[in-house]
Amino acid sequence: MALLYLTPTWPTDVWTNAMRKLAPGMDIRVWPDRVGNIADIRYAVAWLPPANVLRGLPNLSVIFSLGAGVDAILSDPTLPEATPIVRVNEPDLTMRMTEYVVLHVLMQHRQQRRLDQNQKQKIWDSFPTHGASDLAVGIMGLGVMGSDSAMRLRDLGFKVAGWSRTRRRIEGVHCYAGDAEFDAFLHRTDILVSLLPHTPATSGIINRETIRKLSRKGPFGAPIIINAGRGKQQVEADILAALDSGELHAATLDVFETEPLPPESPLWTHPKVTVTPHCAADSDPETISAYVLRQIRRHEAGEPLENVVDRARGY
Amino acid sequence: MALLYLTPTWPTDVWTNAMRKLAPGMDIRVWPDRVGNIADIRYAVAWLPPANVLRGLPNLSVIFSLGAGVDAILSDPTLPEATPIVRVNEPDLTMRMTEYVVLHVLMQHRQQRRLDQNQKQKIWDSFPTHGASDLAVGIMGLGVMGSDSAMRLRDLGFKVAGWSRTRRRIEGVHCYAGDAEFDAFLHRTDILVSLLPHTPATSGIINRETIRKLSRKGPFGAPIIINAGRGKQQVEADILAALDSGELHAATLDVFETEPLPPESPLWTHPKVTVTPHCAADSDPETISAYVLRQIRRHEAGEPLENVVDRARGY
Repeated sequence: MALLYLTPTWPTDVWTNAMRKLAPGMDIRVWPDRVGNIADIRYAVAWLPPANVLRGLPNLSVIFSLGAGVDAILSDPTLPEATPIVRVNEPDLTMRMTEYVVLHVLMQHRQQRRLDQNQKQKIWDSFPTHGASDLAVGIMGLGVMGSDSAMRLRDLGFKVAGWSRTRRRIEGVHCYAGDAEFDAFLHRTDILVSLLPHTPATSGIINRETIRKLSRKGPFGAPIIINAGRGKQQVEADILAALDSGELHAATLDVFETEPLPPESPLWTHPKVTVTPHCAADSDPETISAYVLRQIRRHEAGEPLENVVDRARGY
Repeated sequence: MALLYLTPTWPTDVWTNAMRKLAPGMDIRVWPDRVGNIADIRYAVAWLPPANVLRGLPNLSVIFSLGAGVDAILSDPTLPEATPIVRVNEPDLTMRMTEYVVLHVLMQHRQQRRLDQNQKQKIWDSFPTHGASDLAVGIMGLGVMGSDSAMRLRDLGFKVAGWSRTRRRIEGVHCYAGDAEFDAFLHRTDILVSLLPHTPATSGIINRETIRKLSRKGPFGAPIIINAGRGKQQVEADILAALDSGELHAATLDVFETEPLPPESPLWTHPKVTVTPHCAADSDPETISAYVLRQIRRHEAGEPLENVVDRARGY
């Protein structure tokens, strides 16, 4: 039994070292240099795996995705059809996403960029401020991560709503659902946060039309977007145009149409944009490795795997 | 019965307008131009009041402090001895302080300044990160504000401790108390947050010796300080020296020895310092005015005032 790491864009050593520490006896292989006999490989740990590799493993029984989003794995047209894909659903990953969302909602709410500019110019300006209860935050995607962020923001006093494909119930959070309620959700939202998975239905969902439907009644007079979901959900040309026309007050983006964000993108230097390098829910290799190991042990003991991806749904 | 506004450093109109809206019949006076007959004045609303004014009001029965800290009022050597001083203790004020503390702890924890620098240089760098549970936050001052911040940070997964004059009990927060336990509190703390009131006992408490006693075992190798208490608690020359020697990793300061922070202060431009203009718990004039009005009505009805300052203790 061997475990193959298929993480060409990551420093794989950090991950294999973490796994070796937890499971010293494990037969660990790394694509493309240390694959060995492909017939040995029972498990694959993947992040942005190259196409055609997974299908070539005759005895593969589980694919693990090193992140909550599995769109890159599902987009491989040669993906073996019957092999279960397990996505990481670790409290640590959720907590880090919640930190990111709370941090960036608070940075916008407390006008930290304006304070940063004032500091740079040595301006001591106590401009009028508003309370959290004056600001309507709307979260798209109410899975484990979205729900946790919603509850934390609710506890800080924000008016929080959520929108998801199927209706959720979260105390103190107005939960909208489905296409029919999307516009009503947008109309009441001053800060739109996306934690959606990337699926055909969410592709390009943050576009000019969506932005125009957001609330203009908030304390900044124009809405704000925070995307920590997937870059393919945003139309960057639309975001830039909306920022420049004043239809959008500011944007915080952790994900991009193309990653790494190309140096020529105007997002890097736009004064109303905060760029972070897809790090919102970066997690600790040991915590994630322990999760993968736990699932392997369940599988070997004949127990059902947890957090298996529904391929039809896309997450 | 008249109410006098003694707020020379603030845009007093905003405050008197808010009060007029809530209590249209109120006889409102403003120092120094619209004081009228001083014998009419029963209540004073003060923020950094000039010395000698309060003592000249023969029928003053209550002084309201427009903020949680009352040190500026108490420092008036001619303050009438028997007049009760009421400090604002409003949920809105507490929530805003909590927002500030959570925001700036998260900014340090998530290395937002490093990300800002990277954005400026168009560097896409997913450097290794740590979890909230790797970071020990220590809060000095566990009154209403300190306790609320402690609980919120605990809920986000940080290791939280607090230190106060008299021992408090907060679930999941290690509460240290008194001089005897101060060093133990510092030794375990990676991020020191001060929400202390300004009293003779807290004057200059954030000095080189205190900084040297903080933990060096945290993820940044050197500690961080966040002061949203009072500027007189910090020795700015010591903070600057500790930042430059590497004994301190970073500092976020909302309060200063002299306010507004003078343009010649090196804190404005220090790359490891975030300066905000004493805005951590800025509150909404209407909310605070409603609080003052509620206390006046209690007093007029013969009920006891709430949140009366203990002058011996200093808060």
